[in-house]
Amino acid sequence: MKVKIGKRIKDYRTVWWDKEIVNMIDQTKLPGKFEIYKAENYRETADAIKNMVVRGAPAIGATAAFGMAQAALEFTGSDFEKLKLLMKNAEKIITETRPTAYDLFHAVNFVKKNIKNFDSVKEAKEKALIASQEYADKSAENCRKIGKSGEKLIKDNFNILTHCNAGALACVDYGTAIAPIRFAHYNKKKIHVFVDETRPRLQGAKLTAWELAQERIPHSIIADNAAGYFMQNGEIDIVIVGADRIAGNGDVANKIGTYEKAVLAKENGIPFYVAAPLTTFDMNCKSGKDIVIEERDMNEVLYIDKIRISPKNSKARNPGFDVTPARYIKGIITERGILKAGEVRGI
Amino acid sequence: MKVKIGKRIKDYRTVWWDKEIVNMIDQTKLPGKFEIYKAENYRETADAIKNMVVRGAPAIGATAAFGMAQAALEFTGSDFEKLKLLMKNAEKIITETRPTAYDLFHAVNFVKKNIKNFDSVKEAKEKALIASQEYADKSAENCRKIGKSGEKLIKDNFNILTHCNAGALACVDYGTAIAPIRFAHYNKKKIHVFVDETRPRLQGAKLTAWELAQERIPHSIIADNAAGYFMQNGEIDIVIVGADRIAGNGDVANKIGTYEKAVLAKENGIPFYVAAPLTTFDMNCKSGKDIVIEERDMNEVLYIDKIRISPKNSKARNPGFDVTPARYIKGIITERGILKAGEVRGI
Repeated sequence: MKVKIGKRIKDYRTVWWDKEIVNMIDQTKLPGKFEIYKAENYRETADAIKNMVVRGAPAIGATAAFGMAQAALEFTGSDFEKLKLLMKNAEKIITETRPTAYDLFHAVNFVKKNIKNFDSVKEAKEKALIASQEYADKSAENCRKIGKSGEKLIKDNFNILTHCNAGALACVDYGTAIAPIRFAHYNKKKIHVFVDETRPRLQGAKLTAWELAQERIPHSIIADNAAGYFMQNGEIDIVIVGADRIAGNGDVANKIGTYEKAVLAKENGIPFYVAAPLTTFDMNCKSGKDIVIEERDMNEVLYIDKIRISPKNSKARNPGFDVTPARYIKGIITERGILKAGEVRGI
Repeated sequence: MKVKIGKRIKDYRTVWWDKEIVNMIDQTKLPGKFEIYKAENYRETADAIKNMVVRGAPAIGATAAFGMAQAALEFTGSDFEKLKLLMKNAEKIITETRPTAYDLFHAVNFVKKNIKNFDSVKEAKEKALIASQEYADKSAENCRKIGKSGEKLIKDNFNILTHCNAGALACVDYGTAIAPIRFAHYNKKKIHVFVDETRPRLQGAKLTAWELAQERIPHSIIADNAAGYFMQNGEIDIVIVGADRIAGNGDVANKIGTYEKAVLAKENGIPFYVAAPLTTFDMNCKSGKDIVIEERDMNEVLYIDKIRISPKNSKARNPGFDVTPARYIKGIITERGILKAGEVRGI
């Protein structure tokens, strides 16, 4: 993704490897400050995941893979069994950071699988690094393909609504829901993006708006309450959101509020698309009913940026995600093209 | 409304007259602090309206009426024409504070109409005070009746969703949408209220939650994004909201986000009610299309409590209200009972 620093524009990934250091755009500092967080070993990398320096399933995955490579390279002995022991410990520490993030396990397993067939420490260390880089590159490449596929849905003069941050910051690069928007902009289409601020954590106002601002993609932040108004007034042509998990029948779990936008889009005859790599599909879940929704800390609702906005005796409910039934979704934009919910089982 | 101060519980109105001083619960300080704002003359009363010490159409109306009484009583001469001139000036200052608030004009006209037929200054001054008190009392009484009517809709063990603040703080007492909830609680029904936080100004999290907390009515604040989730999961039995203006065909203009909740309620088979006094009906508006929606300062979205939550180059759109078409509304709870949208013209 492009980042504007002073008058210069530079290409960045959300997370990258450089001389045994895992570098991340520090998302806890955005949009106020652009800072790079440098994790010097796998423990620091795990801390960064835990403290949400990096967030978003694909970005967490790539970071975890790099963390596993750090663990391997940290080993100075020559006993392969001891290396495996160290990596087992690293795996535990890394996977315990965000236990509900599916990609985290996927990424750690990918690195483990790649070193399994070696018995020389040297080869295993080399392969761990190669595998983690491969994982990150593949993730970025999938998003690029999602962008290319989805771009066709966006016509000149379109107003696009998006929810939360399914942008480059949530991935290694490009983003999922934001990738088609990015490519439409690169192709000189005249577009405007409505960005749901996405309470309680405000990832839309803080992260998506920041990404769009870097590339000067015209956008307006709106209160989550206002999306329906703009749909009703014919000001929104298409909705594109990301996904945290997609069930076998095409039901989509995503950030809380996604379901509301999907219902409103249907009511107003506006096409509603989900953009996600195929790794988001979880065939172990037959339908959305099988997806457990995490209720998060109520203080995310009762406070904003550490300021209490509510009476001291009031409580809150804070579901982190919701499930949008497949019938509200026109298509799922993947690295293999745009699928209908019914086609999910075929792949 | 009941207010808990330390261990004591005291009855308060939102605005009241006491020895030529207009007293108001200072809503800019809630929910952090409970303070009474004392306006000593009509100019201070006008300032209080302008600075949103008091807000909500019926509460603004009563405050404006008291302001007009202050203007009359301030007059020390004996020339009735000069009194009229002073009151004309007061009217200008008071009505310019919140020019879109319909009740403000209604209230000012009510006081003016009441003193028109006098030519003695003394009588006019007395009548101005009586009229303003009458206006406030009538407003409270209407809300009490709305509460009594609407209470029947709330069954034992009901979960009620409300949006924004249509509570006692928006009125002189009881509230509109909150009045039925209050009476259900007084009648010992076991209820729980989901309170939409209501971005951008957070009147739900700040004011509605505060009112409910004072009377220990069980409630949970939720992000506006989460209402759909709770509806979908069968956790909401009824939705009751207020109204800013109701058109002749029953379309309702209310706080931004109301339309979203109405569509979601319909989709999930949940009855959606509007509570409002008959003065909210504007027969000059044939339908919602005739209601002009004010776009408010974009900083309400870009900042929360003076903290910038968005990138410095990002803009926002900020419609203050939306229109919910009559077809989504099961009934309108008024001081004359529960009306269907089609019955509006008959009254």
